Amino acid sequence: MALARVARSGLRRSGGAIGSSISERDIFCERVSNHKSFLPSLEKINSHGNLTYLSTIKRVNYMSFGSREISTTPHYRIPSAERLVESESEYDEPRYPGLEATKPGEKPRVVVLGTGWAACRFLKGLDTRIYDVVCISPRNHMVFTPLLASTCVGTLEFRSVAEPVSRIQSTLATSPGSYFYLASCIGVDTDKHEVYCETESNSGLPHEPYQFKVAYDKLVIAAGAEPLTFGIKGVKENAYFLREVIHAQEIRKKLLLNLMLSENPGISEEEKKRLLHCVIIGGGPTGVEFSGELSDFIMRDVQERYSHVKDHIKVTLIEANEILSSFDVGLRQYATNHLTKYGVHLMRGVVKEVHPKKIVLSDGSDVPYGLLVWSTGVGPSQFVKSLNLPKSPGGRIGVDEWLRVPSVEDVFALGDCAGFLEQTGKSVLPALAQVAERQGKYLVELFNSVGKQDGGKALSAKDISLGEPFVYKHLGSMASIGRYKALVDLRQSKDAKGISHAGFVSWLIWRSAYLTRVVSWRNRFYVGVNWATTLVFGRDNSRIG
Amino acid sequence: MALARVARSGLRRSGGAIGSSISERDIFCERVSNHKSFLPSLEKINSHGNLTYLSTIKRVNYMSFGSREISTTPHYRIPSAERLVESESEYDEPRYPGLEATKPGEKPRVVVLGTGWAACRFLKGLDTRIYDVVCISPRNHMVFTPLLASTCVGTLEFRSVAEPVSRIQSTLATSPGSYFYLASCIGVDTDKHEVYCETESNSGLPHEPYQFKVAYDKLVIAAGAEPLTFGIKGVKENAYFLREVIHAQEIRKKLLLNLMLSENPGISEEEKKRLLHCVIIGGGPTGVEFSGELSDFIMRDVQERYSHVKDHIKVTLIEANEILSSFDVGLRQYATNHLTKYGVHLMRGVVKEVHPKKIVLSDGSDVPYGLLVWSTGVGPSQFVKSLNLPKSPGGRIGVDEWLRVPSVEDVFALGDCAGFLEQTGKSVLPALAQVAERQGKYLVELFNSVGKQDGGKALSAKDISLGEPFVYKHLGSMASIGRYKALVDLRQSKDAKGISHAGFVSWLIWRSAYLTRVVSWRNRFYVGVNWATTLVFGRDNSRIG
Repeated sequence: MALARVARSGLRRSGGAIGSSISERDIFCERVSNHKSFLPSLEKINSHGNLTYLSTIKRVNYMSFGSREISTTPHYRIPSAERLVESESEYDEPRYPGLEATKPGEKPRVVVLGTGWAACRFLKGLDTRIYDVVCISPRNHMVFTPLLASTCVGTLEFRSVAEPVSRIQSTLATSPGSYFYLASCIGVDTDKHEVYCETESNSGLPHEPYQFKVAYDKLVIAAGAEPLTFGIKGVKENAYFLREVIHAQEIRKKLLLNLMLSENPGISEEEKKRLLHCVIIGGGPTGVEFSGELSDFIMRDVQERYSHVKDHIKVTLIEANEILSSFDVGLRQYATNHLTKYGVHLMRGVVKEVHPKKIVLSDGSDVPYGLLVWSTGVGPSQFVKSLNLPKSPGGRIGVDEWLRVPSVEDVFALGDCAGFLEQTGKSVLPALAQVAERQGKYLVELFNSVGKQDGGKALSAKDISLGEPFVYKHLGSMASIGRYKALVDLRQSKDAKGISHAGFVSWLIWRSAYLTRVVSWRNRFYVGVNWATTLVFGRDNSRIG
Repeated sequence: MALARVARSGLRRSGGAIGSSISERDIFCERVSNHKSFLPSLEKINSHGNLTYLSTIKRVNYMSFGSREISTTPHYRIPSAERLVESESEYDEPRYPGLEATKPGEKPRVVVLGTGWAACRFLKGLDTRIYDVVCISPRNHMVFTPLLASTCVGTLEFRSVAEPVSRIQSTLATSPGSYFYLASCIGVDTDKHEVYCETESNSGLPHEPYQFKVAYDKLVIAAGAEPLTFGIKGVKENAYFLREVIHAQEIRKKLLLNLMLSENPGISEEEKKRLLHCVIIGGGPTGVEFSGELSDFIMRDVQERYSHVKDHIKVTLIEANEILSSFDVGLRQYATNHLTKYGVHLMRGVVKEVHPKKIVLSDGSDVPYGLLVWSTGVGPSQFVKSLNLPKSPGGRIGVDEWLRVPSVEDVFALGDCAGFLEQTGKSVLPALAQVAERQGKYLVELFNSVGKQDGGKALSAKDISLGEPFVYKHLGSMASIGRYKALVDLRQSKDAKGISHAGFVSWLIWRSAYLTRVVSWRNRFYVGVNWATTLVFGRDNSRIG
């Protein structure tokens, strides 16, 4: 039952482990090099939901290794860890504050890690008459990811795709026992029913870094995933991901900057071409939608507002296999033709290395670029890897059919960070908003039902039936491809038969479907207004900041 | 005629001055320390319109002093400068590219420095059948400054107050001889009719930093001013200004961060109070409007969305003299009562020093703060100071009644960076959007008229009448003070008699007046939509980035 027990030496401030036989620096270096292939650029994704571990590692450099060893590093590596785990009392020092376990008579406390699709759907449905809820995440809003690509070129405003979590679950802001903490989870003690957190930014808080603990009755891990880079050199340093609003902001800034820089007097033709070459790696829905948006932007706005350089801009989508491989073959063909027609250069290739101004492909050829967007899917985050919990194939947190993490009590996982355990006989579900949202809905109903039967408190649900297991039914996939065209594939799986459609009607379906999915009326209104404005006035091209 | 002649040693890449008798580093250090009191925090205002000089100084640190001595440093300080000025040929090297002087038969070229109120009004009205126009500015949009305070708390979106310059003057984007360059001007040679520029961000350009020159037939300097800090220690490091969209974004981020950090478990009451103490220095219209917006935000949104900490938030406005001193005494009294009623704490005081967590006043008392906004007016920018042109009282570029810079040919200055010369007998006009816009309108009419008489080319307007001199007639002042109230003062000067009004009707006038002043229909529409949304849904509080 103590699989996820935390080696907590790092949660202490004092250098209790300094005298150990292995030098602290050696351990640190060893661990960093072990995880090297998973270290994204800290600069680019410091607002990313899952980089809890990384921010800790980064800070170590100037923190004299004070809060380093967190979570589940095997004990043999830190000889002093065992000793430290034994001296429990150190946690109760006032300098490590937190929310203590709920007392009898108080509402049970659900702790939710994350503010993505799964977490927010869960939060939205939670019966707050039964539960207090604490949400912990390094961002205070949900991102409406399917529309994120549209914000990069100004079709939508950034704010229109961000939904503050307090608008999704107002209890977080108003109820005395419920909170939202802008922090990253850095460790979990499933025995003590506690999570350990660190505030995202410390500006002005008394300690550096500011850490605290939160005791839970039930824990819901919905902390998401991280972009996959397959250990390719230079990706994290040079490419942009497209997972957060800040990524979209950065892509937009870079794109507008390159457009303006290429107008400077004295820039050679070759240099202009490079600056204005937008390369997208990965032909999944995100990569295709972003290519489509870019091509729209170029067709209309660049022609009009950057006419000095309009002939130099070019979009290339590089994919190792087929684009939109999960879609129907007819739709794939449609997309290929459509993108090619509107100027997106489709290219087969495998990236070997990424340099600041060029990509090297595995066949040895160079592709110079000015903007590089990387969207080759996601994999387990550093935080998920650090948890000593059972794992599904692919390294996600392993769950059973009720989204429970077996072998520990009161821990649930869902969304991109969770996958069915091998013994369930079910395959790991794809990392889709659709899956995450459905799981959130399922789990919150389970919670509300268990809560009504007085199973909300820690260790109190053992004899309560959890009801039906979670079953995922795929409703289909959609992707917009630019110029008022989209694909709608209503087949239930890759090999099933079913309806699929491409074109303007699909585009209308795509827009209406997403408009109804946008969480709040406010943003629904704004998305509508943004779309109308773009149609009438074109896209905004002010480069702020 | 060579008053503004540039000591151009720095425009060369090679270390031509390295062998001089004074060490380069010594000179650099001397100059930096001389200008120390004018060095704002580089981090905070790197998008600021006027910090051309600073970005140069900053870059020097890693540039081996290659492009340091620009503009008008007296020659005696750089013994090698004279020598370098003589070797003119070095400019024509291909590595210092640019736009050469216009040829006979080509349209005359107007170069406009800046994208503020004056520059944009000028650009908007320019007859582009007569002139080619090149606009040079470190930002590609105009900021609708009177509404900037509203964006900090989410009443308005950032994009609604930014107007891309290519929407104001589309020729910049479309005409073969007209350009917008995202760059800072770093020097002017009035003899050669050339300006020297450096791109704002160099990412990806062949040289570091990327510099170029632009020859002009007529030069319009509308490069704005810089916040005044009176040399008070710690202001630039710790306070936020409120002049650019990025400042508003930073203030918003800081405010939301402090609200969230103060919810963290274990934060002491005292610490919460400090984090949530918003201090505004300066009781002019900007300071008062921002206080009003903050108080609105607290009254409605903080109460609702941050109810855990709502009792700790407090707004203090510190002013050395009287708030809104240019307004009618009745209005001032109204504003004082109104602000006090809605929770803004008004305080008389003079700031002595600013520390990261507290202000020290001249009476020795401490004021702890979590957010500090500094709005005590503006003064000449480093760029303006560096120009060896005649100056008005107060150090602005001195102009005559036609906004010409006398003693040099074809140079005009307007807006916050310009002031009437003492010999004109007119007083320097206040740094107001109203003044800048009126001057822009006046000057562009003058240009269009001169251009029609074939006076557009360099040195060709000597015998052409410039028409009536510029006369400023003040139309009155407005300021919103929160809770649907505003002040409207229609007196023509501080001591004149005239209509003044305060209250809800004034607020309606304030809103309508500004709505009609917003430059584009797109933004007019957005401002309207934003106001309506705020009324219906409250303010957005997602903290992006």
